[in-house]
Amino acid sequence: MNEFDLIEILKKSPAGEPGGRADDGLVIGIGDDAAVMEVPANRQLVVTTDSLVEGVHFLPGTAAADLGYKALAVNLSDLAAMGAEPAWFLLAVTLPRLEESWLADFAAGMGELSREAGIRLAGGDVNCGPLNLTVTACGLIERGRALTRSGARAGDLIAVSGPTGLAALALRQLQRGEAVNPAALRALNRPRPRLALGRALVAVASSCIDISDGLLADLNHVLEASGVGAELELSRLPAAEALPDMREEERWSLQLGGGDDYELCFTIAPDKEHALARLKGASDGVSVIGRIVDGGRCQCLRPDGTRFEPPSAGYVHGGRP
Amino acid sequence: MNEFDLIEILKKSPAGEPGGRADDGLVIGIGDDAAVMEVPANRQLVVTTDSLVEGVHFLPGTAAADLGYKALAVNLSDLAAMGAEPAWFLLAVTLPRLEESWLADFAAGMGELSREAGIRLAGGDVNCGPLNLTVTACGLIERGRALTRSGARAGDLIAVSGPTGLAALALRQLQRGEAVNPAALRALNRPRPRLALGRALVAVASSCIDISDGLLADLNHVLEASGVGAELELSRLPAAEALPDMREEERWSLQLGGGDDYELCFTIAPDKEHALARLKGASDGVSVIGRIVDGGRCQCLRPDGTRFEPPSAGYVHGGRP
Repeated sequence: MNEFDLIEILKKSPAGEPGGRADDGLVIGIGDDAAVMEVPANRQLVVTTDSLVEGVHFLPGTAAADLGYKALAVNLSDLAAMGAEPAWFLLAVTLPRLEESWLADFAAGMGELSREAGIRLAGGDVNCGPLNLTVTACGLIERGRALTRSGARAGDLIAVSGPTGLAALALRQLQRGEAVNPAALRALNRPRPRLALGRALVAVASSCIDISDGLLADLNHVLEASGVGAELELSRLPAAEALPDMREEERWSLQLGGGDDYELCFTIAPDKEHALARLKGASDGVSVIGRIVDGGRCQCLRPDGTRFEPPSAGYVHGGRP
Repeated sequence: MNEFDLIEILKKSPAGEPGGRADDGLVIGIGDDAAVMEVPANRQLVVTTDSLVEGVHFLPGTAAADLGYKALAVNLSDLAAMGAEPAWFLLAVTLPRLEESWLADFAAGMGELSREAGIRLAGGDVNCGPLNLTVTACGLIERGRALTRSGARAGDLIAVSGPTGLAALALRQLQRGEAVNPAALRALNRPRPRLALGRALVAVASSCIDISDGLLADLNHVLEASGVGAELELSRLPAAEALPDMREEERWSLQLGGGDDYELCFTIAPDKEHALARLKGASDGVSVIGRIVDGGRCQCLRPDGTRFEPPSAGYVHGGRP
């Protein structure tokens, strides 16, 4: 196998198939020096790039199909956070050995998600070296309507799209050699980017971010960009059923600090809360967990109203500095 | 230093500055979940991604500034081959240690080229792990005018934009611990993407490719995509002055098979040859080296008209399979 054969494998996999739309605007795809795309009138382009690195973002031995799925998922989650509709993606994959079977499994996992999300592989680069999976995802958004981190205002409600902490739990169990909760493992390996919710929030949310670094760390990015503070009510944090019995404070720490969740955290003006209910299926799992206040800090409040200081303000992927 | 601090270094470097145009269409740059860009009406988007991997694309110990320059250059060369105008780029960099000084040097080298090319850093991801530098470059092209690999027709002239083989010579000298020719080292570490030529060729060339895998291997990509053959006249291959005295056949092998050149190889209908002269500075260094013929092979002809079979049909980066 050489680089060109491997790119052919990707091209012929489900990841290389057109998305939901018959004409997805891909004018020239894999096989030339670059891809050429048509961006529809009145749409802006939304682009993000994220790498998965072995030993940092995933444990050695993770299945190729899971890696293919997740490498795309973490980028789609960024598109979701901007309210964008997925369009095309490019892939740069560096592999220790140029193995056809590994790449075919990788492409199959990636194709599961690309088909569902309606996004199509438009270009790629395959190289030999330490495992590194970098996706660049392109999406489209109505002109001037992208959701940002900077629009939160005092009085806005803070919401999260689903339970957090499950992926971090799975990682901890794997690292300790403990039995791994299947729902937690699925959260770690097959995170579902909240694309439908992101699209639905375009007309509703005042700010939005995806939770890849942990709920508290990512909310802090919003607070910084918006120049505001926040009060979180710990009793309102949605807890996954799969979270095992643990001390309340340990659970809060996991929910606030565990990363790799890929839910959305967003803010919404109080007079728009009713709009959430009208989003139908897209808003499944959404919980209001606090509100934006003046001042530049995030305070976490116990049920009795006292402050809780989480042990760490953020999640470091794979535990490496 | 953490990932966010390092991304700030990139953002504040020359690579993060707007390009030549006052309004380059970057609506949201570094600092949100994704970048947002405005693609002008009547323009199509051109996107490419390429990684540089240590030990494969560059030798360990290569200066950070050279790597920053080259990681961008190899992607700009792909934009040049499509005839596109550079617009924005994203960077995913994986570093063994998150060192501020290394990244500052890297950004400085990248900034030298980004400023000259009028392209701006729009987003990035910094991670810890084995050195891997992946750039995704976005350019713009007049609708339907992208240069491709598939337009070569029998009778077209084949041209190359400058001498080839120098970068491969430098790599060989470095690997053997020999004194390295300065011009060859510059060709290896600081390749100049032929952006102005690519733009000028939009109205002129029938096909185009950049020479990253070696002249012969890349010309073969054009022949395959176009369903044609070629005859190259070895006496017309442009030789760099810096190429040392060597046997003719050894020199041809280097010029045909050496990679990492980042010149353009293009075809042009014979009745358009006069247009080349009118491209002014953009066509400096261009040589006609052969012609497209019917049939699916590339034949290399010695000055006496006999066939020369180069020992290898392509260049493998870093000598790894």
